[in-house]
Amino acid sequence: MEKNPVVITEINEMKKISRKLKKEGKSIGFVPTMGYLHEGHKSLIRCSIKENDITVISIFVNPKQFSPNEDLDKYPRDFERDLEICRKEKVDYVFYPTFEEMYPENFQTYVIVEELTKNLCGAYRKGHFKGVTTVVMKLFNIVNPDNAYFGKKDYQQYKVIQRMVKDLNMDVNVVGCPLIREKDGLALSSRNKYLSEEERKSALSLSKSLFYAKELFKNGERNVENLKKEMSEMILNYPEVKEIQYIEIVNPETLKPKETAEEGDIIALAVYVGNTRLIDNIQL
Amino acid sequence: MEKNPVVITEINEMKKISRKLKKEGKSIGFVPTMGYLHEGHKSLIRCSIKENDITVISIFVNPKQFSPNEDLDKYPRDFERDLEICRKEKVDYVFYPTFEEMYPENFQTYVIVEELTKNLCGAYRKGHFKGVTTVVMKLFNIVNPDNAYFGKKDYQQYKVIQRMVKDLNMDVNVVGCPLIREKDGLALSSRNKYLSEEERKSALSLSKSLFYAKELFKNGERNVENLKKEMSEMILNYPEVKEIQYIEIVNPETLKPKETAEEGDIIALAVYVGNTRLIDNIQL
Repeated sequence: MEKNPVVITEINEMKKISRKLKKEGKSIGFVPTMGYLHEGHKSLIRCSIKENDITVISIFVNPKQFSPNEDLDKYPRDFERDLEICRKEKVDYVFYPTFEEMYPENFQTYVIVEELTKNLCGAYRKGHFKGVTTVVMKLFNIVNPDNAYFGKKDYQQYKVIQRMVKDLNMDVNVVGCPLIREKDGLALSSRNKYLSEEERKSALSLSKSLFYAKELFKNGERNVENLKKEMSEMILNYPEVKEIQYIEIVNPETLKPKETAEEGDIIALAVYVGNTRLIDNIQL
Repeated sequence: MEKNPVVITEINEMKKISRKLKKEGKSIGFVPTMGYLHEGHKSLIRCSIKENDITVISIFVNPKQFSPNEDLDKYPRDFERDLEICRKEKVDYVFYPTFEEMYPENFQTYVIVEELTKNLCGAYRKGHFKGVTTVVMKLFNIVNPDNAYFGKKDYQQYKVIQRMVKDLNMDVNVVGCPLIREKDGLALSSRNKYLSEEERKSALSLSKSLFYAKELFKNGERNVENLKKEMSEMILNYPEVKEIQYIEIVNPETLKPKETAEEGDIIALAVYVGNTRLIDNIQL
């Protein structure tokens, strides 16, 4: 049976409800999103529903995590479609605030995680993680969840949020959920919508090169430079690939680049396919 | 009757206790301090005890709010004396963590309030408010208070914390309590301990000049430059005054400098008496 989720647009209303639920002893699972939900989000929602009495998702395209030159304006939005998905997935509450509700006049407080945001996407998307940690801190304080679910597609984001929660002694349990792929390997992302048919084919370069590197690793290759070189050559063979922004092999906890690859390390990359920036990663 | 406060050194223990108290429906009042308690702290404690079921104070000299050139090492400490005061004041819990407990290895998350920290003490004590907001965020998350008490002696700190709580949607009510003075006008501060007998006399320059400016204001003077000039001349007449760091007349909410003084504005100043940096303020 489907279920109509309650849509909440005001912070105080969301706070009131979450406090009431906690008083009643209910556990709250939380899935923060920027909307335009796909199978990746659905897998987070399903995790949350399984592990908690109540599931809240937020839909908020957070301008503070986009740089001026990024795709804020064209970021895909379709609230009715999202709501339909929430209905089918039996989400209890959808928190859907406006910009003005989240960032009223004179807003000026930010949360920053310093070390973990220095490389990978943090090195290229200036201010991105500052926007992410700030909005997630706000959402955690508003929704008051026991468990919050993040996809490992954004592996760095997941580790940064986990660090923030630990460093600031917050009570939320940050759960990292597996990256979800299309059948052909493409990591799910709302940004895949930007891709033309031809670009969609070249977008496979990310996952294919990751699978290939993992294969090389399994066969004994440990040299990071060699692995990166093999990946890079494979990727640049795809016609619509415009630029490899980075390929890094990092420690899964510190996110610091390795020279010699070890089991458990993360290979992460960002590639421009046409004008679309795509990311992907795999654990060795 | 005196009461032995419970001393807690571990974060998890403090969290467990505060969560239990909240579950029992008890309200928690919180007074964060750096110890070396004086009448100013006592007035905060008394406020908290009056307005809450349970009062928690923290004693933690937070290195992150001291610049490398500041007085961290010589900052006065006397835990037994502080505990005796807590006993007399009937504090319920004293949270007294170590540095390692608050900032374990790899700690790297900070809270920053951007606009309100730009002038007054923020302009001179680089990184100070970043340290303050970060530790207060941690303490709030650990102690989980309904009400938190701050002295208006540190007026900028009070406004910065209030802003942080509002911007990040925290549930704490931030209460500003009146600045407490010695009979002769000197604002109470743990740092007054640094003053020699002669310096103690010159330390009166801060309060005397504030009272004088308020008097001039009452008599019609509105020009900020004139008021600052009068104050400055008065202060520099005291022999042990080494330097006026700043005298500002600011809006009580934005803390932005005014050109024309109005009722409600704050006059704030920082003065070096000998090697000791003292601050004080008054509301017009």
